[in-house]
Amino acid sequence: MSEEIEGKPGIGRIEAFSDGVIAIIVTIMVLELKAPERPGLGELWHLWPVFLAYVLSFAYVGIYWANHHRLFSHARVVTNSLVWLNLGLLFSLSLIPFTAAYLGEQHFNRDGTILYLISMLAPAIFYVPLQAVIRRTGVQGGAAEAYHRQTSRKGVAATLIYAVGLALTFVSPWCGIASAAVVALLWFLPDSPVDAMFGS
Amino acid sequence: MSEEIEGKPGIGRIEAFSDGVIAIIVTIMVLELKAPERPGLGELWHLWPVFLAYVLSFAYVGIYWANHHRLFSHARVVTNSLVWLNLGLLFSLSLIPFTAAYLGEQHFNRDGTILYLISMLAPAIFYVPLQAVIRRTGVQGGAAEAYHRQTSRKGVAATLIYAVGLALTFVSPWCGIASAAVVALLWFLPDSPVDAMFGS
Amino acid sequence: MSEEIEGKPGIGRIEAFSDGVIAIIVTIMVLELKAPERPGLGELWHLWPVFLAYVLSFAYVGIYWANHHRLFSHARVVTNSLVWLNLGLLFSLSLIPFTAAYLGEQHFNRDGTILYLISMLAPAIFYVPLQAVIRRTGVQGGAAEAYHRQTSRKGVAATLIYAVGLALTFVSPWCGIASAAVVALLWFLPDSPVDAMFGS
Amino acid sequence: MSEEIEGKPGIGRIEAFSDGVIAIIVTIMVLELKAPERPGLGELWHLWPVFLAYVLSFAYVGIYWANHHRLFSHARVVTNSLVWLNLGLLFSLSLIPFTAAYLGEQHFNRDGTILYLISMLAPAIFYVPLQAVIRRTGVQGGAAEAYHRQTSRKGVAATLIYAVGLALTFVSPWCGIASAAVVALLWFLPDSPVDAMFGS
Repeated sequence: MSEEIEGKPGIGRIEAFSDGVIAIIVTIMVLELKAPERPGLGELWHLWPVFLAYVLSFAYVGIYWANHHRLFSHARVVTNSLVWLNLGLLFSLSLIPFTAAYLGEQHFNRDGTILYLISMLAPAIFYVPLQAVIRRTGVQGGAAEAYHRQTSRKGVAATLIYAVGLALTFVSPWCGIASAAVVALLWFLPDSPVDAMFGS
Repeated sequence: MSEEIEGKPGIGRIEAFSDGVIAIIVTIMVLELKAPERPGLGELWHLWPVFLAYVLSFAYVGIYWANHHRLFSHARVVTNSLVWLNLGLLFSLSLIPFTAAYLGEQHFNRDGTILYLISMLAPAIFYVPLQAVIRRTGVQGGAAEAYHRQTSRKGVAATLIYAVGLALTFVSPWCGIASAAVVALLWFLPDSPVDAMFGS
Repeated sequence: MSEEIEGKPGIGRIEAFSDGVIAIIVTIMVLELKAPERPGLGELWHLWPVFLAYVLSFAYVGIYWANHHRLFSHARVVTNSLVWLNLGLLFSLSLIPFTAAYLGEQHFNRDGTILYLISMLAPAIFYVPLQAVIRRTGVQGGAAEAYHRQTSRKGVAATLIYAVGLALTFVSPWCGIASAAVVALLWFLPDSPVDAMFGS
Repeated sequence: MSEEIEGKPGIGRIEAFSDGVIAIIVTIMVLELKAPERPGLGELWHLWPVFLAYVLSFAYVGIYWANHHRLFSHARVVTNSLVWLNLGLLFSLSLIPFTAAYLGEQHFNRDGTILYLISMLAPAIFYVPLQAVIRRTGVQGGAAEAYHRQTSRKGVAATLIYAVGLALTFVSPWCGIASAAVVALLWFLPDSPVDAMFGS
């Protein structure tokens, strides 16, 4: 499925489509925040689970966009696998508004957290082979190689942290939520700590 | 209606607009997945028809995007027919979220499947003349010709499979759904099987 | 307010933003088509007013996109007036999903038709000065001049037809709806009939 | 967090993603305008608070888009801080549809106005360091410097007006709304009045 079908201009359109889908995913989640009809700012307090789920999910999808953005700056040719794996990634990301709504609706209980963490693991299932395709068919050279090595390592670390968080959710859902927050921090921070952890 | 009105830069903007519309179509379908308020992961089970309709429709619209993407990489000039046929294609695709919601709401019964398959046939009605316009006014040469011949053939095969599926829906709706899945597979697979089927 | 602030690249971003907004306007209207829960394809029949309002509005907004697209291919510099008039145009277009929903909800009665036709006149209020700005600051020369003359004429014709339709709505709402359909046809057809009507 | 990670092409994709998110934010607000089912144009009158909140918010988000547009035309390199501060800005803007809905739902009372003005202040918290990053890493030279100085000054003026408006909301909510309208006007007007006010 990997024969080249188009060069660099085609990459631009895949990016544009992905940007559109991710922009919509990240924005329609705010529709879950329903304005209370009853007066009093105190009524807003009841929205905390939905709001917290929104913040976490916006950060999560935003990080995926930033990573996608950097990954595709290394792509050079459009192959069938690139197109389909990217669609798979977008599909799995598109489930986040649903699992985030469930997390908020269920007030961050065990079930809500389990489904949410599973939906956070799903995009990684598509991201790993997508990166592999771009690593193989994309920009070559030392800098590209270093980028792929470093981000793959971060990806493995993130997956492990989610998996541990998923297990700890059976102790307390907040351990699961904390694991999602730790992964977000991991991507916000500069690269050295992870390098140190894994031995550069 | 086919006089040239703009060159290649105009094509870019039609692609951008189409990408936007298709990105929204593919993403708003997730709004049909309503998070259950009642506790228990078992409650999620009731969502299977809506979820399955979402998966099928995401794949369907995603395939149309990928095909549209390849088709427009062969376009060279903007003509009135190109603009209006493309708007017609986008319109017919925009009905998929509605027919998918109906399919899910009706639990994949006969009526839901019939409407869904009809809405899957509709975009083809605009795609055929759209491809004809681009074949005539777009990039010429052996490679372009081969691309047009091969994908037209796939388009005919897909239409036939849908039509057979529509007829078999009166036996069982699942035959109709299976036809949609077969068409999706047809586009995912490399081109050789279809070539073999139709004699290259 | 008309000092130049950016050259051609800035135009590209205004187009991209406008494409995004128009793509969303045209697509979210389909959310008004609610899938009936009751079984039977006959239930779909009750959706005809909402569906017809959707078809008309998709055609209307699609035509505005196509016109916007051609108009901006003549723009050369970004001025403050260009930015704000374009935002005004997008704002007035963004009311179409609301007035279309009202038209459908009110089953194409007089009130629904009046509000709908008013909302169709509103974008013209922004389009005329927007075109004037681009005519003055944009691409000059015979072809551009011919384009501006011809489309301005069509714009005047469309406005007159809407105004007549609005008046005739007090006889029957269907006269108003017909005027919207006539305007849509006017834009779909090649340019000669209008030229003939107005004397080229 | 500020090491350069990409050059000018990366900026284009950040703009495209931001355009997408802002386009969606500005457009989904119209979904709050629910078409009345009861007949009579008089029923539309009840929508005035939601409509007024929509107009204000469209203007507000539109102005942010226009400012973002001009700011990014000065950016040259993608840094981590640029990516995350921009995501923060988009996040804070994405809350406007919610606070606007609350403002409309609460009929422009004190609580609704307070939350609305707070949500208008929030984007400024991200805009200031974002502009600082672009000022430091972006296009240098007299014109760029003049642009940054002038718009920073407008930003400070806007923040002060919001803060005063927030305080005056305890006298009357309409003072708060008026402050939002004054800021909108400030951005629509050419630059001289502010320059005069602050001494150029």
